[in-house]
Amino acid sequence: MLKQAIYHRALNQFAYAYDDKNLHIMLQTKKDDMEQVSLIYGDPYDFKDEEWQYQTLKMEKTGSTNLFDFWKVSVKPTYYRLRYAFHCEGVDGETLIYTERGFYQEPPEDIGCYFCFPYLHKVDTFTAPEWVKDTVWYQIFPERFGNGDPTLTPDEGLEWGSAKPTPTNFFGGDFQGVIDHLDHLEEIGITGIYFCPIFKAHSNHKYDTIDYMEIDPQFGDKETFRKLVKECHQRGIRVMLDAVFNHSGYYFESFQDVLKNGESSRYKDWFHIWDFPLQTKPNPNYDTFGFVANMPKLDTANPAVKEHLFDVARYWIEEFDIDGWRLDVANEIDSAFWREFRQVVKEAKSDAYILGEIWHDSMPWLQGDQFDAVMNYPFTNGAIDFFGKQSMKSIEFADSITNVLHMYPQNVNEVSFNLLDSHDTARILTLAKGVKERVRLLYLFQLSFIGTPCIYYGDEIGMAGGNDPGCRACMEWDENKQDRDLFNFVKKLIQMRKDIPAFGNRGAFRFLQVDEEKDIVVYEKKLNQEQLVFVLNNCDQAQAIDVDALQKKKSIELFEEK
Amino acid sequence: MLKQAIYHRALNQFAYAYDDKNLHIMLQTKKDDMEQVSLIYGDPYDFKDEEWQYQTLKMEKTGSTNLFDFWKVSVKPTYYRLRYAFHCEGVDGETLIYTERGFYQEPPEDIGCYFCFPYLHKVDTFTAPEWVKDTVWYQIFPERFGNGDPTLTPDEGLEWGSAKPTPTNFFGGDFQGVIDHLDHLEEIGITGIYFCPIFKAHSNHKYDTIDYMEIDPQFGDKETFRKLVKECHQRGIRVMLDAVFNHSGYYFESFQDVLKNGESSRYKDWFHIWDFPLQTKPNPNYDTFGFVANMPKLDTANPAVKEHLFDVARYWIEEFDIDGWRLDVANEIDSAFWREFRQVVKEAKSDAYILGEIWHDSMPWLQGDQFDAVMNYPFTNGAIDFFGKQSMKSIEFADSITNVLHMYPQNVNEVSFNLLDSHDTARILTLAKGVKERVRLLYLFQLSFIGTPCIYYGDEIGMAGGNDPGCRACMEWDENKQDRDLFNFVKKLIQMRKDIPAFGNRGAFRFLQVDEEKDIVVYEKKLNQEQLVFVLNNCDQAQAIDVDALQKKKSIELFEEK
Repeated sequence: MLKQAIYHRALNQFAYAYDDKNLHIMLQTKKDDMEQVSLIYGDPYDFKDEEWQYQTLKMEKTGSTNLFDFWKVSVKPTYYRLRYAFHCEGVDGETLIYTERGFYQEPPEDIGCYFCFPYLHKVDTFTAPEWVKDTVWYQIFPERFGNGDPTLTPDEGLEWGSAKPTPTNFFGGDFQGVIDHLDHLEEIGITGIYFCPIFKAHSNHKYDTIDYMEIDPQFGDKETFRKLVKECHQRGIRVMLDAVFNHSGYYFESFQDVLKNGESSRYKDWFHIWDFPLQTKPNPNYDTFGFVANMPKLDTANPAVKEHLFDVARYWIEEFDIDGWRLDVANEIDSAFWREFRQVVKEAKSDAYILGEIWHDSMPWLQGDQFDAVMNYPFTNGAIDFFGKQSMKSIEFADSITNVLHMYPQNVNEVSFNLLDSHDTARILTLAKGVKERVRLLYLFQLSFIGTPCIYYGDEIGMAGGNDPGCRACMEWDENKQDRDLFNFVKKLIQMRKDIPAFGNRGAFRFLQVDEEKDIVVYEKKLNQEQLVFVLNNCDQAQAIDVDALQKKKSIELFEEK
Repeated sequence: MLKQAIYHRALNQFAYAYDDKNLHIMLQTKKDDMEQVSLIYGDPYDFKDEEWQYQTLKMEKTGSTNLFDFWKVSVKPTYYRLRYAFHCEGVDGETLIYTERGFYQEPPEDIGCYFCFPYLHKVDTFTAPEWVKDTVWYQIFPERFGNGDPTLTPDEGLEWGSAKPTPTNFFGGDFQGVIDHLDHLEEIGITGIYFCPIFKAHSNHKYDTIDYMEIDPQFGDKETFRKLVKECHQRGIRVMLDAVFNHSGYYFESFQDVLKNGESSRYKDWFHIWDFPLQTKPNPNYDTFGFVANMPKLDTANPAVKEHLFDVARYWIEEFDIDGWRLDVANEIDSAFWREFRQVVKEAKSDAYILGEIWHDSMPWLQGDQFDAVMNYPFTNGAIDFFGKQSMKSIEFADSITNVLHMYPQNVNEVSFNLLDSHDTARILTLAKGVKERVRLLYLFQLSFIGTPCIYYGDEIGMAGGNDPGCRACMEWDENKQDRDLFNFVKKLIQMRKDIPAFGNRGAFRFLQVDEEKDIVVYEKKLNQEQLVFVLNNCDQAQAIDVDALQKKKSIELFEEK
């Protein structure tokens, strides 16, 4: 038995409240090292004749990578308290008890040795809005989705789709353009829109905010936005906005005031300024996003800044009834700020969704006190490298996805924002070198996975595009130029996700077979007695494979496509 | 190279801000598996010709257990941001780069692969009061320290020290008794007192609070307490009180109101009541501390309860100038409560100390948003089992202490509350089966260790006592019955801790030699060029040992005693 591989530490994904009654406990062991792992558990105060009273429960192996196996179990402690340890039976015949104080031959008598989940508190339990689990998102880059009101188009605006996107050109996308095309979203089955920034800013991407309280006039006015939200809600579509709170734009009023008034500006503490007077060249003498001089970093520990940004967060919920905030560069803002932000947002709308942009392991932000979810790039990386680029082997892919599922608690995974691409990456069709079948596999995998999937506008009708700015082309509205087959394929998958409970978040995901040679992966989504088996052939040719899970079982073929 | 043993996850003790400029990064590897480990690191936005710019820095092996080595390094990122990975050179000649996405042969080009410390925020940095690092605590059980005002002694009170302590007897300890004996504390070098509960309650231990706003009359009135705090402060002694907020006592007014008025009580939501009418027998139909019916658990998520307890927290600071709160059963109260509590307390007194009673691994509470420290029982267990009970081997002891030092960040360890015993355990002399030499080793180890040591009243003059109630005997004030040699021994150690910077928190602790056969441990405390070498013989007889660290070096003998 490899002791160094055995790992558990209370909290994070290893011990957490799944809801207000059930605890999930997980153990990591070396791959193929254990015959069985069981949980030894009991109430910390339950003694009879000075002997601690405990029970034992078998754990289930929920996934394996090339290095590790993961074992999980769910328990429901009557008095919300738990002490526990792990009974490990090695394939080598050795048996060990793994506790907070290390390894023992027998369950130790001293209850102080055991791991501790002190008390299940509802208020500390990670709880995301219920509706998110069933949402299919659609990301819109507002300048490029639809030009519904040409009178708003900037003077330098180009004819829709007449040129390639550049970092500085404009095409006049606006809210009316979105309203005009809501049928498209409704038809395919979208139930949530994530809008890139809509607030007043100079650039076409609007990440350089001038005024967080104003809509950029090229998109329309507040009445049009209000109408847009209402129309979305009538169609069962939620609306999420992009909050760019890490930094302002150069023309943000407060920053302009500091540029003008220097040390005597009342806004001088709104930023991280090293010395006065402010300079932007050759290098800025203040903290910025990256090294971008026209994106000065806001001091989100300053009470006045907090107050302003919290007002912003409240305003768009209370006045326009939006349903969520996506937080730009979320991990470069302090957690103290996000904890207060969460309270402000949930007070304004108890079931608003808070989604952080973090490209990395995000466990610290997903403990229930900050975000409901993060943009799940670890999922993206595996899916894109395997199905999209075919640069990853099937076993590596299965490992990476198994890791994704075991790096966070289950309730976190269920609302994770699973994107394949975005305004920050190349489009999937381009990543897949134009091979549509790979795009289909990507969608099939994304839409049958745990979490909440997001489609980047235009991908569903076969748009291509390289890295920013290539991925920000105008939406193609000429049906003759749209890939309607792909559209219908995605539509069908979304429908299945809605119709078949095991297809979406209610089914448990597990790889069943990974055929390295044939580049085929087989996985299941399981809910009670219902087992959905997915057989994905990542090779360019048709292949035959024996699928163990389908042998001698009554099965129905739900779907077969190229 | 054993990949399964290599572990790092951003935050917790593995990656943290030590202060507002420096990050500490740690890696775990299999014991004796690596020749060298280095950190590869750089600013995430620092690219030249599309190549990420990084540096490399050797890490230091700061400790080893039978399973693992621990490697640490400190870096100071110019722009407060860091991406990093680990360059591992195995003793087997293999070299691997360990990243957030697993292992690579060469540093990967994609910066997304690296571990991420997104931004060092002062407001998120764990920061405990500076004074705590240099404090030597003394724990007083108020009913048993000194009877200075016999008029306050309860009617059933017994003559001081005339009987063994029982769960229910009284001896009349009071505040005047503490004031009368402050010389004793000052003489030995104490700079902080931790008082067990002083609020109105029926029992002799006062953990069954009746009124959090009132002092128990047997201890004195508020004026006497105010005087006590003042006298302590004049002598450079801080005062910490015990906050029993997990549960109230049976006679707490609000609980009495619910008992009387049932469902119509305005306090019915102050507790976790299952149904009405309330019953205490045969089993309570409400949540309790353990299964103790007369300690009903408070609902600390209820705003009215929070408000009351926060008022309590503020009141004793603002009105009586206390310096800290020790939080009883701290891990059974929700973290949301403690986060607000911290803000309330630090607003009332910015350098107040917040100490949680947690017997287990406490990382979740020590992230900067909740507690400044916990009662460091993992330290206690190792020290007691090795020096006290001699039930642990020297190698196991060294492992357990090395684990303690590597389970939390360094800034957490520096203010950890290192106790050897308390009102909840047997006294050290009793644990050491009456062998005074073992008690001396315990004190030597405790007082030369990282953290903030606490002496349980009476231990320093050789009092014995078993588990509660045995450990709660009346303080022995007859100097003829006090062990003055032990007293002077402890006094000398405390003085050395104050005089020699490397002796206390400024020195880095590391085991140098562990002689399993002779039961001798050798450790160092190192600060710059100054190295203190401690040679502790845990065997009952004198032994000779070659101490490598003392070979061919100029050394001064600071201390030699039995």
